[in-house]
Amino acid sequence: MELKSFVRDIPDFPKKGVSYKDITPLLLDPEAMHRAVSLFLENLPHRNIDKVVGIESRGFFFATLLAEKLNAGFIPVRKPGKLPHRTHTEDYDLEYGSDTLEIHEDAIQPGEKVLLHDDVLATGGTAVATCKLIEKCGGEIVQCNFLVELEFLKGVEKLKNYNVSSLLKYS
Amino acid sequence: MELKSFVRDIPDFPKKGVSYKDITPLLLDPEAMHRAVSLFLENLPHRNIDKVVGIESRGFFFATLLAEKLNAGFIPVRKPGKLPHRTHTEDYDLEYGSDTLEIHEDAIQPGEKVLLHDDVLATGGTAVATCKLIEKCGGEIVQCNFLVELEFLKGVEKLKNYNVSSLLKYS
Repeated sequence: MELKSFVRDIPDFPKKGVSYKDITPLLLDPEAMHRAVSLFLENLPHRNIDKVVGIESRGFFFATLLAEKLNAGFIPVRKPGKLPHRTHTEDYDLEYGSDTLEIHEDAIQPGEKVLLHDDVLATGGTAVATCKLIEKCGGEIVQCNFLVELEFLKGVEKLKNYNVSSLLKYS
Repeated sequence: MELKSFVRDIPDFPKKGVSYKDITPLLLDPEAMHRAVSLFLENLPHRNIDKVVGIESRGFFFATLLAEKLNAGFIPVRKPGKLPHRTHTEDYDLEYGSDTLEIHEDAIQPGEKVLLHDDVLATGGTAVATCKLIEKCGGEIVQCNFLVELEFLKGVEKLKNYNVSSLLKYS
């Protein structure tokens, strides 16, 4: 099964000149979803994971599935104002301006092993900010994994201190 | 296991006078997650489900898990401008003003059996809009299920034409 055949290119989305990788056809196919989850698990350095962090909102799709398979807790990292309890916050740069992500302070206990997941690794800004949030809580990052990696944006260079794994690479 | 013990009340969130049901402690506990998924499956009228629709963004948490257990496809219903391909759209009223939800036109084939899932049933506005989106695609709604139901907001009355199931009811 070629998982890339379930990813649809959308030209000029969300803006002119960008080719967007639409993963919704993959989500529609139960066998493709199952295959992706199996590959994510195979690519882990080990399965001693306490918590799986998913980044809002497309990171939630696979993060809950991975948490369930690993018998781990699931943690949503969200945009400002969405998490109702006490949070750590982290700013990160966008092409124009900046944005912020939050995590509940009590979501991770010091020393817990954490898997970070998002759907796409692009420039790496959100992933790096999420790594910092996990580390503010005292978590140890076992791996950062992604369904899609846009290699030409070199996000992996920002994550050079971490184990990074991507299922579908586009150069 | 009393699942309600994993739901945290947050007073005055997102605004004064509202008591918010925070489900993130439940997500952190693998056994509680497993129990919730089992109950969702037990409460279905049947398991002949082709697609599971989750509503952005907290509806994604359990919708992907239910899709995987049912060997069904997963469909995200999202806020405007997030889905990159051709969409059906549906407006719905909020306390002040209105909002819109979208579904990919090609996500459901006519006659397919669909399960709708969201984390909370409040006034029912988003759920009714999502039912309309599913029906625009030609889908047959098998059930609308929710982790939490705020019974005093009477959302179930707006969904009286559908099978509705909620795990945790608050009166």
